[in-house]
Amino acid sequence: MVGSNFVKAQIFAKEQGILAGVPFVDAICEEVGIKKPTWIFQEGAYLLNASPTNRTSVAVVVGPAKKVLLAERIMLNVLCRCSGVATESHRVRSALAWNGWSGQVVGTRKTTPGFRMVEKYGLLVGGAGTHRYDMSSMVMLKDNHVKLSGQTSSMHDLITKTKKYAGFQFKIEVECQNLDDALNAAHAGADIVMLDNLEPEEAIAAAKELKSAHPNLLIEASGGINSSNAAKYAVPEIDIISMSCLVQGYPIIDFSMKVD
Amino acid sequence: MVGSNFVKAQIFAKEQGILAGVPFVDAICEEVGIKKPTWIFQEGAYLLNASPTNRTSVAVVVGPAKKVLLAERIMLNVLCRCSGVATESHRVRSALAWNGWSGQVVGTRKTTPGFRMVEKYGLLVGGAGTHRYDMSSMVMLKDNHVKLSGQTSSMHDLITKTKKYAGFQFKIEVECQNLDDALNAAHAGADIVMLDNLEPEEAIAAAKELKSAHPNLLIEASGGINSSNAAKYAVPEIDIISMSCLVQGYPIIDFSMKVD
Amino acid sequence: MVGSNFVKAQIFAKEQGILAGVPFVDAICEEVGIKKPTWIFQEGAYLLNASPTNRTSVAVVVGPAKKVLLAERIMLNVLCRCSGVATESHRVRSALAWNGWSGQVVGTRKTTPGFRMVEKYGLLVGGAGTHRYDMSSMVMLKDNHVKLSGQTSSMHDLITKTKKYAGFQFKIEVECQNLDDALNAAHAGADIVMLDNLEPEEAIAAAKELKSAHPNLLIEASGGINSSNAAKYAVPEIDIISMSCLVQGYPIIDFSMKVD
Amino acid sequence: MVGSNFVKAQIFAKEQGILAGVPFVDAICEEVGIKKPTWIFQEGAYLLNASPTNRTSVAVVVGPAKKVLLAERIMLNVLCRCSGVATESHRVRSALAWNGWSGQVVGTRKTTPGFRMVEKYGLLVGGAGTHRYDMSSMVMLKDNHVKLSGQTSSMHDLITKTKKYAGFQFKIEVECQNLDDALNAAHAGADIVMLDNLEPEEAIAAAKELKSAHPNLLIEASGGINSSNAAKYAVPEIDIISMSCLVQGYPIIDFSMKVD
Amino acid sequence: MVGSNFVKAQIFAKEQGILAGVPFVDAICEEVGIKKPTWIFQEGAYLLNASPTNRTSVAVVVGPAKKVLLAERIMLNVLCRCSGVATESHRVRSALAWNGWSGQVVGTRKTTPGFRMVEKYGLLVGGAGTHRYDMSSMVMLKDNHVKLSGQTSSMHDLITKTKKYAGFQFKIEVECQNLDDALNAAHAGADIVMLDNLEPEEAIAAAKELKSAHPNLLIEASGGINSSNAAKYAVPEIDIISMSCLVQGYPIIDFSMKVD
Amino acid sequence: MVGSNFVKAQIFAKEQGILAGVPFVDAICEEVGIKKPTWIFQEGAYLLNASPTNRTSVAVVVGPAKKVLLAERIMLNVLCRCSGVATESHRVRSALAWNGWSGQVVGTRKTTPGFRMVEKYGLLVGGAGTHRYDMSSMVMLKDNHVKLSGQTSSMHDLITKTKKYAGFQFKIEVECQNLDDALNAAHAGADIVMLDNLEPEEAIAAAKELKSAHPNLLIEASGGINSSNAAKYAVPEIDIISMSCLVQGYPIIDFSMKVD
Repeated sequence: MVGSNFVKAQIFAKEQGILAGVPFVDAICEEVGIKKPTWIFQEGAYLLNASPTNRTSVAVVVGPAKKVLLAERIMLNVLCRCSGVATESHRVRSALAWNGWSGQVVGTRKTTPGFRMVEKYGLLVGGAGTHRYDMSSMVMLKDNHVKLSGQTSSMHDLITKTKKYAGFQFKIEVECQNLDDALNAAHAGADIVMLDNLEPEEAIAAAKELKSAHPNLLIEASGGINSSNAAKYAVPEIDIISMSCLVQGYPIIDFSMKVD
Repeated sequence: MVGSNFVKAQIFAKEQGILAGVPFVDAICEEVGIKKPTWIFQEGAYLLNASPTNRTSVAVVVGPAKKVLLAERIMLNVLCRCSGVATESHRVRSALAWNGWSGQVVGTRKTTPGFRMVEKYGLLVGGAGTHRYDMSSMVMLKDNHVKLSGQTSSMHDLITKTKKYAGFQFKIEVECQNLDDALNAAHAGADIVMLDNLEPEEAIAAAKELKSAHPNLLIEASGGINSSNAAKYAVPEIDIISMSCLVQGYPIIDFSMKVD
Repeated sequence: MVGSNFVKAQIFAKEQGILAGVPFVDAICEEVGIKKPTWIFQEGAYLLNASPTNRTSVAVVVGPAKKVLLAERIMLNVLCRCSGVATESHRVRSALAWNGWSGQVVGTRKTTPGFRMVEKYGLLVGGAGTHRYDMSSMVMLKDNHVKLSGQTSSMHDLITKTKKYAGFQFKIEVECQNLDDALNAAHAGADIVMLDNLEPEEAIAAAKELKSAHPNLLIEASGGINSSNAAKYAVPEIDIISMSCLVQGYPIIDFSMKVD
Repeated sequence: MVGSNFVKAQIFAKEQGILAGVPFVDAICEEVGIKKPTWIFQEGAYLLNASPTNRTSVAVVVGPAKKVLLAERIMLNVLCRCSGVATESHRVRSALAWNGWSGQVVGTRKTTPGFRMVEKYGLLVGGAGTHRYDMSSMVMLKDNHVKLSGQTSSMHDLITKTKKYAGFQFKIEVECQNLDDALNAAHAGADIVMLDNLEPEEAIAAAKELKSAHPNLLIEASGGINSSNAAKYAVPEIDIISMSCLVQGYPIIDFSMKVD
Repeated sequence: MVGSNFVKAQIFAKEQGILAGVPFVDAICEEVGIKKPTWIFQEGAYLLNASPTNRTSVAVVVGPAKKVLLAERIMLNVLCRCSGVATESHRVRSALAWNGWSGQVVGTRKTTPGFRMVEKYGLLVGGAGTHRYDMSSMVMLKDNHVKLSGQTSSMHDLITKTKKYAGFQFKIEVECQNLDDALNAAHAGADIVMLDNLEPEEAIAAAKELKSAHPNLLIEASGGINSSNAAKYAVPEIDIISMSCLVQGYPIIDFSMKVD
Repeated sequence: MVGSNFVKAQIFAKEQGILAGVPFVDAICEEVGIKKPTWIFQEGAYLLNASPTNRTSVAVVVGPAKKVLLAERIMLNVLCRCSGVATESHRVRSALAWNGWSGQVVGTRKTTPGFRMVEKYGLLVGGAGTHRYDMSSMVMLKDNHVKLSGQTSSMHDLITKTKKYAGFQFKIEVECQNLDDALNAAHAGADIVMLDNLEPEEAIAAAKELKSAHPNLLIEASGGINSSNAAKYAVPEIDIISMSCLVQGYPIIDFSMKVD
């Protein structure tokens, strides 16, 4: 039958960055019925020398021509994006660590619909955290939830009820727009407080006050943070910095496949 | 077409117990294309007078004959089981509360494959907790995980690594076979310790010692606990009692449907 | 990758009873991608010596740690329930056979939604029958059908029409509340008559009269029959005894898995 | 948006025959989100005057242009085939009835994969029977089953075991190649005997002998029977004539759709 | 377990014709978990000597009895139909080629719902073309589209807009009822013109005139063409003849399976 | 039940750009069971004044709180991306059109797996073309196909065979690395030639020579083209410019939702 002759093809990186997405590529090969690629670099390797004019071979794929070609585009589309997320995550995280910050850089829920698993995984490979993987990982009370439950004065009640309803197994995080709300939430028993859309100085001041009153509270800064301004939030009192730019609009790393 | 004439049918409880499963019955009606039943009792009501010879009407179903009959058996099968779980949960929980215990009674993962949602929901209606809804709710290290990671001496490492890998958003529970393991786990940062298969006195002694050393630690008793022996574990130092008998082998509450 | 090292685990029975569910466990292993367990006992074996303090190893499972743990809970949840159904079926059936009755004990349609195949199969392993597997196995006219078709006087017509509509390939069973209805149904051509919710003496008297008039008619007793009262229905004129307690609220047989 | 203007279209029959497939066409309309057609003729109507030059309007379809066109081809493809089956079934059946035969004409399992429901339904509309709808309708022992169970001498055993295994709820039909096998099967308790691939005289002789020995036995003639030779089998002793030509290679009835 | 013993069965052709459907049969075997058959004839072979009394073995199937029997009916139902389409396609196409016509015979969209892939594939095996495989293969403007877009005078606009909307990658075919419309369509940029329901002489005259004005235009004749009248359309100016009778109401080729 | 009270929420754009994705948002609302939003701006509107400090309300969503919140994140994730693709497509296309180029800007196959439909649709809203929607839209011979078929000398054969195999309904595009290959392909009957990875001057020279020899040939430039260098390819002889940056790594347009 047409295309049943065996061929050998190579996957090349055309830009430097972190290789990520190996398990998905393996699964795609399994799905179309060919062997897993032989990987020349391991998941998470930094491909330092790859460039458009100096393509770096990262894997060898072998199988019937038609199956290899069937897998080609989807493998490359996954690798480009997953490696893009990992590379950007690594870039931000290592810059902050270099400055001495020991907190966690994490992504957000703003992932591509249907593609969350690849993007969340890319975060992990690049050294960032996933935040909640899905809605069953943690209970999160956001501004819209608080608004829906009535006046601010009742936020204490909302948290108390949520703790009761959710059961002992969940942590509770509360999104807060200012220090007062955050103090209120911590007092009511929140495990994590997210300071949303605060300017760096404001966020830092709030974090210091919260930590002195509630030393076990985890504090997250979020909202409009990207690689240009992340460093301004990287103080010891802020435990977590979350950034949507790691999972949306991130630059891809280019890969291609060539039959030998 | 055959069976398209409208009929009215009633759902009867034939035993006393808690009515549970209303949202599932509503969803079944929607699925087969008839209106939701008109409920005479609300979800969670205790049907005190129902017996085989004194059937209590709990709902009225109206629709084309063939659709009502199509929904009949699945509605009853769900109601019988969900109400069974809720009734048994309520029985155990209210007995322990009567004795002054303020902890939580929860189910386990030993639910019927494919039917977990109904059984976990029945626990909530009856006043018990669900424990983890699924594997993404909390990280749990059980005996087999500990065994797989090497010597007991490394349990500290295992917990440390797990905390790092899981990210800030999860609580970590560790299943322990004795006090030493439990102290070890608490020291390494576990949020919850499960005392598995310990006799009541042993469990209570362990719980007291753990609480005095780690006041914020949550303590769960589990393994072989049922309605006959649950009371022996209900001391203030034990926060959670988990029981498989609430989700497997539980007695059902009998319901039937009759066309008027 | 984490959890890819091979482990060996054993499945233990912790209570005496009949082992049932082997093909489902095999299928679960196939689904998660590990080899079928090596079974030490065969499907249907009576595990006579198993108890909580004397666990009996019934199977050995081998595979990558993470896959074995992934399969663990679902395998055990299936085995516990399937063996529970088989054990209870066997208990009832062998008691009646011991008394010299040669009819069939069968389950009913009151199975757990989504789990019917396992429970119906457990009946077979325990020596009981499945009754209709689903609605395409036989035509059954229940009280609600009869009511919906008009006056009792028309039951004869209903059966005649049903026979014509169903085609030559189906048997027809009619649920009857008393002897008159049953005689009527038999006269109209029913293949099987179900005596529903009759007291033992009443059912036996009706069965005798029916058999003398229609020797080829099959007679089933149903409704409120359980292991305490089944023996009262076990006379030669009653061919089939159906019991819902075999597929709902049945006691489970406890199994566990331990990594070596 | 393009194609959202409402249009009215008519479905025309271009050949005489029986209109069949109305419920499927209704379901297609529901699926694409338009109202059910207004039917000018009812399901089962014989369209006597339809011809290529005298198109008969059978239904009016109204909806947004793009949805009507989306439904067009699948509606017509179903109508053409379902009406084709019904028309051919009617033709054969009414010819045999005209000659005074009161048995059943039925189809076989040789339906188009994935399209069985439409073809089996067409049989019913045309006055033929469906035979088994699927493998759970009846137990059927065909030549390959008999061969697989060993020597012919053991057919008696095979039937006995099958009756035991299948339970009381099923009828058992046995495919036989000659009179001896058929007598054997009837003696062992078969409910129906299929005389497969026998010449008309042979089949009739066998049927007469079988009926005189087993008056309650149902007898089916099958194998190579089509509209040219069906009449030769239509004797009182043969209860059922099954014909594959009703569900494969049957002529279609042509329909088209035109926008007004 | 019942039916797990290995058996060998043969698939026999009972009529002459072209063998088609091998890849589907192979896929069915894979689906039920047995090895692909060993084929004695290749896909596309003309089975010249097969007849009801001289069955030709085309393949050997080996596997556990129950799996072989599970695959039997679906394999035969596919082979009968796919070979039927291929045989009829070959018959028409080789007759026209014999007369010296070098155009393409193609099927239409009037395929059996859910079974299109098998029928379209049968066309290819028999040497005919598939026409559009589905709605994304080519843009086709049919009479209903033209009608919906307003007056005939605007057909030019419709085609212009369609070309713009569809993008450079698609060919555009326009269904025309007469020469004027066809000239109009060709002038507006149609790649292919379908002459629908024209009598042979009319179609040929139109084709000649269209070709002399637009030498690159492809011309298709369609509508009411079958094996009796196809030859009348087979002139050099007509490039394509499409026939619905190749995919609906086509005669099947009979196959059976026998266990050795 | 919790969250069943009706709320009103607004969707805000926080950056200027083209609004795209309305039909997907409508479909999401339908899926979760709330009414379509009331849109204040239409699909394709350029939101000129939107900025982080001047949020522009684009739609009003009304429904039960829990359903609105369930839809929130997925609606926003789709809008951000679809609007991002449309905005970038518009930016490139209008710049080239401003310079007087009348060809088509199109995306490529390098879309996010599982999310192609949204991204391809965003291209259309922004005025770019989709290129092939999927593999059934057009036949495309890429470098790997050519390599697999043997020596370059046989490219002529490959194209000839492909035309024959594909049928009359498809266009054929060939990816070429240099002028010679492209001339070869055009001569063999390609409908479209893609000049892959050629520098602007080289591509322009090739296009001029190809057009003079084959005036009807469509010419596409592809490979490494982005918004910085696209203008260099925008000459009259190049009909199509394809750019992967429109469907991967594109900047998103930020949207948020607030409950009133």
